[in-house]
Amino acid sequence: MSSSEIDALIEMMAKLPGLGPRSARRAVLHLIRKRALLLTPLADAMQEVAVTARECLNCGNVGTSDICDICNSEKRATGVLCVVEDVSDLWAMERAEVFDGRYHVLGGTLSALDGVGPEDLSIPRLIDRVTSEGITEVILALNATVDGQTTAHYIADQLEDQVTLTSLAQGVPVGGELDYLDEGTISAALSARKTL
Amino acid sequence: MSSSEIDALIEMMAKLPGLGPRSARRAVLHLIRKRALLLTPLADAMQEVAVTARECLNCGNVGTSDICDICNSEKRATGVLCVVEDVSDLWAMERAEVFDGRYHVLGGTLSALDGVGPEDLSIPRLIDRVTSEGITEVILALNATVDGQTTAHYIADQLEDQVTLTSLAQGVPVGGELDYLDEGTISAALSARKTL
Repeated sequence: MSSSEIDALIEMMAKLPGLGPRSARRAVLHLIRKRALLLTPLADAMQEVAVTARECLNCGNVGTSDICDICNSEKRATGVLCVVEDVSDLWAMERAEVFDGRYHVLGGTLSALDGVGPEDLSIPRLIDRVTSEGITEVILALNATVDGQTTAHYIADQLEDQVTLTSLAQGVPVGGELDYLDEGTISAALSARKTL
Repeated sequence: MSSSEIDALIEMMAKLPGLGPRSARRAVLHLIRKRALLLTPLADAMQEVAVTARECLNCGNVGTSDICDICNSEKRATGVLCVVEDVSDLWAMERAEVFDGRYHVLGGTLSALDGVGPEDLSIPRLIDRVTSEGITEVILALNATVDGQTTAHYIADQLEDQVTLTSLAQGVPVGGELDYLDEGTISAALSARKTL
């Protein structure tokens, strides 16, 4: 149908999360039509990121230097670490613009089924950082899933004598309608109810 | 949050059809994790396509040579042209593997509202091709939309004395359930009913 180069590009685009064969074809046609405006700059940006992207040696964030901008920033509060499962969670926290400390990316959750133990995540480095950076509070911002909470409990066990441990509050999300919420969330929101 | 290079890449990816800011972030993280396997080859493939992609001078298909593989192929039936709105429609026809003639891509539909006239589409070239390639049948495979059908009527008016004009049959799609079909489709399927 089209040429083999274009077919190869479609096939690769279809491997991206969120794109299937049909949307990959649409995306590639769009790119070819916006060649100067989008395709060439996108190819250059990818090449650039392929060469420069690396994990922060300290926190596990993805950036373009060995120590990421957040770890390097002097404006960040010291003494408090926010532990997240994944880089995407760190980015989500940063978009909320409410936390001014530093992060620690675990790179996953403990999972007996998948054979993921503490040494497969960056838990040992977290424990090191707590000591070496003089951390007084660790915020466990892990996902509210079984694996996330198991991991939170494990980390809490390791650190409970050294730091204050906190976790994100559970409750009704902003804009949430009770009718559409699961029972677990309603139950958590009720037991954590606040006096007005 | 991340570096400016990564942010720039996310922003460009979010411009692709079918991707928004959230899925662009997911895609970019995925790409960074699969750097050697996906990010670098994808950047190379984009660069390659950015340099080589072009429209077939004859039919308007997108390929990597001045005359596309379909127009160049000697296996293709001569004498019959399939007229489609867009390159994606041509690719869809090719995936069905049921048409062995050549194509003509209009590049859109006539639209009085948007000021698209026959000279903005490749209708003049279509009329030329009918004469120069000795076409005897023109299949109007335009979308079953108002604009598509207006365009089909216009082309039929231009060519009715020279060639046999046909259009795709309308009816119940394969696997379609009557309960989920619109009244127009059911009505078209009923009036085009066949004796068993």
